[in-house]
Amino acid sequence: MTPTITMFYGISILVAAIAFAFAAYLYVWVKRQPQENKRITEVAGLIRDGANTFMKREYKILAIFASVIAILILVFLPHPIWSHEDWWKNIAMAVSYICGTVLSAIAGKLGLVVASLSNGRSAEAAKKGIKPAFLIGFRGGSVMGLIVVGCAVLGVAVVLWAVGEASILLGFSFGASSLALFAKAGGGIFTKTADVAADLTGKVELGIAEDDPRNPAVIADNVGDNVGDVAGMGADLFDSNVAALTSALVLAQAIGGGLNTMMVLCYAALGLLASVIGIAAGRITKNGTPTGALNSCTYVTSAIFLALTAIATALFGFSWLIWGCSATGLIVGVVIGLATDYFTDDSKPIVKKVAHASKSGPAFTVLSGVSYGFLSALPAMIGIAVSALISYKICAAQGTEFALFGISMAAVGMLSIVAMIISNDTYGPIVDNARGLAEMGGLGEEAIAVADELDSAGNTVKAVTKGFSIGAAGLTVISLLGTFMSEVNAAGGNVTAFDIMDPTVFFGILIGAAIPAVFSAMLILGVDKNAQKMVAEIHRQFNTIVGLKEGKEGVKPEYDKCIDVATTGALRELIPAGLVAILATVAVGFVGGPKAVGGFLLGNIVSGLLLSLFMSNAGGLWDNSKKYVEAGNEGGKGSEAHKAAVIGDTVGDPFKDTAGPSINTQITVVSLVASLLSALFVQFNIFG
Amino acid sequence: MTPTITMFYGISILVAAIAFAFAAYLYVWVKRQPQENKRITEVAGLIRDGANTFMKREYKILAIFASVIAILILVFLPHPIWSHEDWWKNIAMAVSYICGTVLSAIAGKLGLVVASLSNGRSAEAAKKGIKPAFLIGFRGGSVMGLIVVGCAVLGVAVVLWAVGEASILLGFSFGASSLALFAKAGGGIFTKTADVAADLTGKVELGIAEDDPRNPAVIADNVGDNVGDVAGMGADLFDSNVAALTSALVLAQAIGGGLNTMMVLCYAALGLLASVIGIAAGRITKNGTPTGALNSCTYVTSAIFLALTAIATALFGFSWLIWGCSATGLIVGVVIGLATDYFTDDSKPIVKKVAHASKSGPAFTVLSGVSYGFLSALPAMIGIAVSALISYKICAAQGTEFALFGISMAAVGMLSIVAMIISNDTYGPIVDNARGLAEMGGLGEEAIAVADELDSAGNTVKAVTKGFSIGAAGLTVISLLGTFMSEVNAAGGNVTAFDIMDPTVFFGILIGAAIPAVFSAMLILGVDKNAQKMVAEIHRQFNTIVGLKEGKEGVKPEYDKCIDVATTGALRELIPAGLVAILATVAVGFVGGPKAVGGFLLGNIVSGLLLSLFMSNAGGLWDNSKKYVEAGNEGGKGSEAHKAAVIGDTVGDPFKDTAGPSINTQITVVSLVASLLSALFVQFNIFG
Repeated sequence: MTPTITMFYGISILVAAIAFAFAAYLYVWVKRQPQENKRITEVAGLIRDGANTFMKREYKILAIFASVIAILILVFLPHPIWSHEDWWKNIAMAVSYICGTVLSAIAGKLGLVVASLSNGRSAEAAKKGIKPAFLIGFRGGSVMGLIVVGCAVLGVAVVLWAVGEASILLGFSFGASSLALFAKAGGGIFTKTADVAADLTGKVELGIAEDDPRNPAVIADNVGDNVGDVAGMGADLFDSNVAALTSALVLAQAIGGGLNTMMVLCYAALGLLASVIGIAAGRITKNGTPTGALNSCTYVTSAIFLALTAIATALFGFSWLIWGCSATGLIVGVVIGLATDYFTDDSKPIVKKVAHASKSGPAFTVLSGVSYGFLSALPAMIGIAVSALISYKICAAQGTEFALFGISMAAVGMLSIVAMIISNDTYGPIVDNARGLAEMGGLGEEAIAVADELDSAGNTVKAVTKGFSIGAAGLTVISLLGTFMSEVNAAGGNVTAFDIMDPTVFFGILIGAAIPAVFSAMLILGVDKNAQKMVAEIHRQFNTIVGLKEGKEGVKPEYDKCIDVATTGALRELIPAGLVAILATVAVGFVGGPKAVGGFLLGNIVSGLLLSLFMSNAGGLWDNSKKYVEAGNEGGKGSEAHKAAVIGDTVGDPFKDTAGPSINTQITVVSLVASLLSALFVQFNIFG
Repeated sequence: MTPTITMFYGISILVAAIAFAFAAYLYVWVKRQPQENKRITEVAGLIRDGANTFMKREYKILAIFASVIAILILVFLPHPIWSHEDWWKNIAMAVSYICGTVLSAIAGKLGLVVASLSNGRSAEAAKKGIKPAFLIGFRGGSVMGLIVVGCAVLGVAVVLWAVGEASILLGFSFGASSLALFAKAGGGIFTKTADVAADLTGKVELGIAEDDPRNPAVIADNVGDNVGDVAGMGADLFDSNVAALTSALVLAQAIGGGLNTMMVLCYAALGLLASVIGIAAGRITKNGTPTGALNSCTYVTSAIFLALTAIATALFGFSWLIWGCSATGLIVGVVIGLATDYFTDDSKPIVKKVAHASKSGPAFTVLSGVSYGFLSALPAMIGIAVSALISYKICAAQGTEFALFGISMAAVGMLSIVAMIISNDTYGPIVDNARGLAEMGGLGEEAIAVADELDSAGNTVKAVTKGFSIGAAGLTVISLLGTFMSEVNAAGGNVTAFDIMDPTVFFGILIGAAIPAVFSAMLILGVDKNAQKMVAEIHRQFNTIVGLKEGKEGVKPEYDKCIDVATTGALRELIPAGLVAILATVAVGFVGGPKAVGGFLLGNIVSGLLLSLFMSNAGGLWDNSKKYVEAGNEGGKGSEAHKAAVIGDTVGDPFKDTAGPSINTQITVVSLVASLLSALFVQFNIFG
């Protein structure tokens, strides 16, 4: 069959439409499930309102930020508007930037809506057993997954169709990632502020249960799950997905476009289609577990993707070499996920070792967690390195540029099943909320136990998906490095290599490597500071609201005050942390020129990958060690080991849910900023 | 004046002789100071014996290791002995390797001897006031500094004189660094095993003072200061110094030798001479503090070095450009030291902030320490990047190879005052021991207060010198990267660049970046495991030795059992951690060839610098925060804040004294292994 590019625009739009339709069906299905318990309806309403308030205030700030950036883009990018005749490109880029931000915001918002619809319903279904409760949580999460990836596939296809030039997509991608950076950082600070403060005052000081309704921070904590893990994570993966596609498309056009461009669009659409099928098949089998169900969905989707792309490759005459790259990426992604699982699953030895170390006190919990966190980075680093090397070697005979395209398609392959990943990831906070609601709604021991099992599956699967998404981000940014170089040369930079022996490159590398550390520190300090404020607020409520501590009938804490503390704090911290990364790129570019920026990107990727793997895995490890102790091991709840494990978990909270996953986005943003400003760096620099 | 190379061999040997003579004078001076207190003499004897036992057992293992390596070198390096006619080079390299190990061992051993002579005498002098006590501690430390650097200057000059070829010095340098790697790792594990176990059982469980003689681990703790901080650190800086000189000499010969080679030798000798003068001038001035005295010695030495080298440059017609590079290196080193001081000095805001965070519990102590530790890496990374860039730009007009030589001379400049740095660094453990001895010898409140002040100065200055030595290691390994490339090309590798866009290089970068994390994790886990064993041993003694806890007259703990636990544990852990780094280099080389190794070295440097700065500074920060709380702030001793601060300090112990500073050596070792094996990597590899 002779394929045409228009055909693939059509396919992209069609598959996106199928995904949206299926999402709508699932949404209606979830909404039709019963929610009758008054208390649950009330609390779920509080959570929804809290989340909406935060999102509204956050989006207001981001709208201002995005407007400023859009104007800057209009004036300066891809070239200063007065300096060339193609002024329409500036307009196209500004508009595509705005589209990126708006789609990202919509995806996040819709995810929130369906998550806050699913949590209460899943809690109530827990009374009927694990299967129906699971299905509501999973399908709620799937709505988010389908919408996010549908938006990405649709957006990329429409923008490319409209302007024809892949480099304009950099604006779209930058829109997605700049919003994601702030959504992730802001949501991450919010969620951990509330979580840490709730744990410290509730579990540690008073010895009450995690979701005890007497705790003034308990609603804020549940709101945090939604704004951080649902909305923030959705924005994050929307961004990774768009970035991977953008970079593949830019590199495809650099080697002549044609079939290769079509291939990128086709693979992206098929990945979404495979996820639709995988999601439709998702349920707990007879004698199955929730973890098993979630993981088997991932494997089914992967297999379908490989099969569909093989058929398409044969049908349309795409390059089999590139198919090999995609397959390599996907397989390595699964392997990285499994390795992460080994370090963070509580049925595996590492979690048990850390739990055992807790018996000797919190210092040992922290030290052993840090150590295993460091070790856990190794398999993923090797996996990314090997998949890049294999993809390159597969394609090397066709030339360097083709091989770079191969690497970018390995990233696309790894991210092909991202709709499935997001579904699994969103399932986590939904059932986490459901567990809280089951407790606050007084649904009884049995329902809570069911909700607990669902929650624990969410934690385990989260580790796998996190490893996956960090791996994919790693590969994506490698190809973004290629994109940067190709943009530099398009701007007349005449750069053929970033040689590490060149001190200008080296200068960039060292600065770039320091940035993820600085960025993480700022986020963690933000959580640190805000959590202390919230602890003070909780103490105030316990001291001034009569009967609250004792749980007197009718006495309620002022939940909204805690939500306000978290919101105000998160919004104050998110902009500076994000700006530091962006401004450092700009500074390095104007000081050292394109070569320094190339080094900067490399340093940023390397240390960013290392730190995000370390922090995400150490955090997951501590969390599950605490759960393992709470399940009655090493002395169980209330023992010294438990106290130590709780301290480890508290340290891990901002590691795994604030800093760790935000670094991903930080890397992408920096890479895109570099590509966007490449022409300016070539023209204006001091030492380059 | 027309200089000849022989003249500079002569100067090197002469200055080394002056340093040895001065060291001998100081040694005799220290020995003549009175030590009359029986209890102190007894305890100091126990410490000395414990240290000697450990060193003897450690050196036995290292002798076996070094013999194996020497044989491998003899057979394979620089080329397989059967494959070329210059078989004498193999012999020369093996012999120079052995010289490196032996000199390193001697320097460590002599340092121990004088340290164990000085500690008791300094304690007794504390009764007479701060000035005499300071002088004994400082001069004791200086003996170590002079001997270590004397050996380095002498060794490098003699080996070069004997063989004429700088690349043979790689063997000498590798001897120094392979021994340093194990000495640092072994000593670091020993010292922190004892320190952590003593603190946890003594301070935390029983609430007794740090150096209470009832604690069975107290002698092991003091032994640890000697084997870790004196012997280990001496080996470490001997290694850095030799590596910097070797790399400068290799690069000097690559651009034709002559004046440039002489310049390296001359600058090294003048640095040692400047240190002799600085040390001779070192004392507490009227109204001065110990910290002030130590710091002003550093500044005086730096100024003298700059003046002497300027005179030599004028006199012998050396390149002024290179003088500029050295000056840049030295000045940036001082700046890095000051930045480190800002993050770790308890009169500055950061330490106070972490102490304040401790009021909210240990999780906040850890989180804020981690964050500021991350932030603290930034100034040093910028400093290293900028000094490399400036040095390169200064020399760029004379060609790339000359500019690389310039960078290596910046490292030599930064390390020029290393004898002074070692003196200050060794002063720390001596007065730390003195403080313990003053307490155990019952010298009274006043003497303990004096010893406390000396100890605190040691901690502060340690941060500065640590920043300095990490910075110098960073610059050295950059020039070692140049050495590696020049060796690869000498072996016919024909590599003109390590391009980060080349996936083979990238593959190496990612693996290299993971290694320091893995290495650190292994060391920390080693401390973790051993400390738990020692805690069990201490508990056993408290439970079975009647009257020990109560401090009954005449009842003594079994100190030697604790020393044995630490020794056995440290010796078991040190080899695997060191081997991992070496074997990873070898594996990457045979898989990916020289380009992958180039990337590997870069990744290793970047992540190694980041992690070692992070861990050293965070550890110092926690230590001083604890001291700040103990001084009566934020609730003082016994408060909740204090408990949290102690946990922070315990986490920081293996960070700052085991993993952090060992990474330095790990980086150097890996760089040297790469250079040594370069010819083999060029010949044999799978994917290169």
